[in-house]
Amino acid sequence: MLVIVTYDVSTVTPAGRKRLRRVAKACERYGQRVQKSVFECQVNDMQFEELERQLLGEIDAEVDNLRFYRLTEPHHLRVKQYGVFRSVDFEGALVV
Amino acid sequence: MLVIVTYDVSTVTPAGRKRLRRVAKACERYGQRVQKSVFECQVNDMQFEELERQLLGEIDAEVDNLRFYRLTEPHHLRVKQYGVFRSVDFEGALVV
Repeated sequence: MLVIVTYDVSTVTPAGRKRLRRVAKACERYGQRVQKSVFECQVNDMQFEELERQLLGEIDAEVDNLRFYRLTEPHHLRVKQYGVFRSVDFEGALVV
Repeated sequence: MLVIVTYDVSTVTPAGRKRLRRVAKACERYGQRVQKSVFECQVNDMQFEELERQLLGEIDAEVDNLRFYRLTEPHHLRVKQYGVFRSVDFEGALVV
């Protein structure tokens, strides 16, 4: 199944940016980052449980918000996107 | 149906922040803001078309990314969330 992970974290602090990087890294094992804090992950039930457990170990539940949305098949009917796909500058590394 | 709208925009610039505010305003007519740039909108097919058209009029397709995810029923089985729900400080107005 396709699971959309959205993660709301303040990136004003270094700690927040670090949590976002670690959440991104975990999600990217199962799919791709499509926005700065949105990930599309292709997982089965077991992988979903693993991912969920990993992410719950990364976030700060006192200040962050993490959401999972499960999309049913066929995915191409459920997803629409517009605009630019910014695959390289999510960390701001290439933007001065 | 429940449509998840996710909007990736740079809020470094005043223009980007303004676009996010306008996208939020449009989405909030149909649902609620659940993260800084994630909205859960309850719409029928006609409303979805309206919302889509409005948002396409607000975004800058050269620099922003806008995604729509349609969730099927029953929604409570498709959505999971963890952490804090920051409903008041999305604009940073209450955070010094």
